[in-house]
Amino acid sequence: MHDLIIIGGGPAGVSAGVYAARKKLKTLLIAPEFGGQSIVSEGIENWIGTVKISGPELAENFKKHLLAYAGDTVEIKEESVTDIKHLDAGRPSGGFVVTTEEGQYETKTILVTTGSTRRKLEIAGAKEFDNKGLTYCASCDGPLFAGQDVVVIGGGNAAFETAAQLLAYCKSVTLLVRSEKIKADEITVAKLKQNSKFKIITNAIPVEIKGENFVKSIVYQDAITKENHEIEVAGIFVEIGLLPTTYFAKNILELNQIGQIPVDPRNQKTKVAGIWAAGDCTDGLYHQNNIASGDAVKALEDIYVEMHTK
Amino acid sequence: MHDLIIIGGGPAGVSAGVYAARKKLKTLLIAPEFGGQSIVSEGIENWIGTVKISGPELAENFKKHLLAYAGDTVEIKEESVTDIKHLDAGRPSGGFVVTTEEGQYETKTILVTTGSTRRKLEIAGAKEFDNKGLTYCASCDGPLFAGQDVVVIGGGNAAFETAAQLLAYCKSVTLLVRSEKIKADEITVAKLKQNSKFKIITNAIPVEIKGENFVKSIVYQDAITKENHEIEVAGIFVEIGLLPTTYFAKNILELNQIGQIPVDPRNQKTKVAGIWAAGDCTDGLYHQNNIASGDAVKALEDIYVEMHTK
Repeated sequence: MHDLIIIGGGPAGVSAGVYAARKKLKTLLIAPEFGGQSIVSEGIENWIGTVKISGPELAENFKKHLLAYAGDTVEIKEESVTDIKHLDAGRPSGGFVVTTEEGQYETKTILVTTGSTRRKLEIAGAKEFDNKGLTYCASCDGPLFAGQDVVVIGGGNAAFETAAQLLAYCKSVTLLVRSEKIKADEITVAKLKQNSKFKIITNAIPVEIKGENFVKSIVYQDAITKENHEIEVAGIFVEIGLLPTTYFAKNILELNQIGQIPVDPRNQKTKVAGIWAAGDCTDGLYHQNNIASGDAVKALEDIYVEMHTK
Repeated sequence: MHDLIIIGGGPAGVSAGVYAARKKLKTLLIAPEFGGQSIVSEGIENWIGTVKISGPELAENFKKHLLAYAGDTVEIKEESVTDIKHLDAGRPSGGFVVTTEEGQYETKTILVTTGSTRRKLEIAGAKEFDNKGLTYCASCDGPLFAGQDVVVIGGGNAAFETAAQLLAYCKSVTLLVRSEKIKADEITVAKLKQNSKFKIITNAIPVEIKGENFVKSIVYQDAITKENHEIEVAGIFVEIGLLPTTYFAKNILELNQIGQIPVDPRNQKTKVAGIWAAGDCTDGLYHQNNIASGDAVKALEDIYVEMHTK
């Protein structure tokens, strides 16, 4: 039986893995890939201690760091977890069985660091034109729209950063923000506003995506006048928030209304003894790479203390 | 008046500074130096994303990252803070005056990230032989003891890491651990135990340091037999824990018994509205570089939200 199974390979999972190796906990880290959400980012300017790094490079550094110390202490399996159960339902403190698509693994403790994924747009035409002009990844698909007019949907940092990327090669970028207020950092907003190819429309509620084989336009409603407007665009980039990746845990952990795992912020304990969680999959107030990393280290310290005082 | 004064230049202070720049908060960062406690470390293997880095290099990376984005948003003063007061005692929400040895600065909010320093040994001879064979910094003074017998006092990671450093050039290293139990990470302990020049004495309570102009020996009591033993050594390295750097805040913040600043672990708020704290100076359960960094980012997110919703 493992001492610990870490589920996830983003900044939280890797931080926990590095500390598990230092503490010689017999650990299995299960993650389909490394790097977390930032892996699609072109330029990360806020991974502390690094002026600028691309998502794939940061993911590579994470993996390199973990492998440098994993030795025979931290084993890695590139699989996806589908379920967690108590090993003995009558004795909940007796460990867990973690099921993946490829096997079952037993462990004394679990740390969940599965992060979150992008929330999908749910309006008319969204399914029909998914990957046919409607996309959730500017880094992946942006260059396909070089020289064309595009729309970005969202009002937070991710939306503005996506717009910034697209402005490098698109003919124009229009940002549709649902609310009156913009939630992104001011440094990002201010920089973009200087670009004459960039336009922000606030109080804009997306209603429908139109096209033939590919996207041709998007219709939005003005939240104040209630009038519909149509913008001709070739591409639509969606950045409207995140969904915590916690479906596999819902049989054993109580999730909050938006699917996050509630944790004690002092030590990252969940309400189930033996299970900790850290990073974007939790109900922490703020989600950033460095927060995920720090909270995962807290969890690991706490797991270690608990295993050595029981 | 500044939006924010960040006090401290370790991982927490720098993380906050980078985020303050992103969020365009008019910020003053006051710190006598960058890098925090790790600046004396020869090899840091757990700054996540970096396989191995020296303390001075990491400090340099911190400073470089901050300066790359500070612009005219984050000003830096290399000073030491001596006091914090409410700007208007009758109106506690009206901002603060931060006093340093060189000036006074007004601000709406404060983030304290001053970390901690090493706890001093308080036994007979400790003052007399301070810097005369008794030292608190292996990276600084270790090489002076090449080819000689030395003692390290302490039982945590810092003590073992100090021993590991010294084993590279000292004739022998004896670790005096006060308790029966060793608190350091097992990977560190296991590695050291293989070295024939290394010896651990548990239940060893330091009693007196003897010498003439320089340290000649240390006397310790066996906690079980109560017998005194004397070891002839040229150097004594002390790693017995940390004291939070919070003296300048004691007029405005209530500190806990060991001088730490109590914070709400969800958002790093102190009990005084307008003051946040993060890192080793707080009462967080665990203290590590990445924890300090993540918690400082939480604080900055929270400060930003509060300034934009008030």
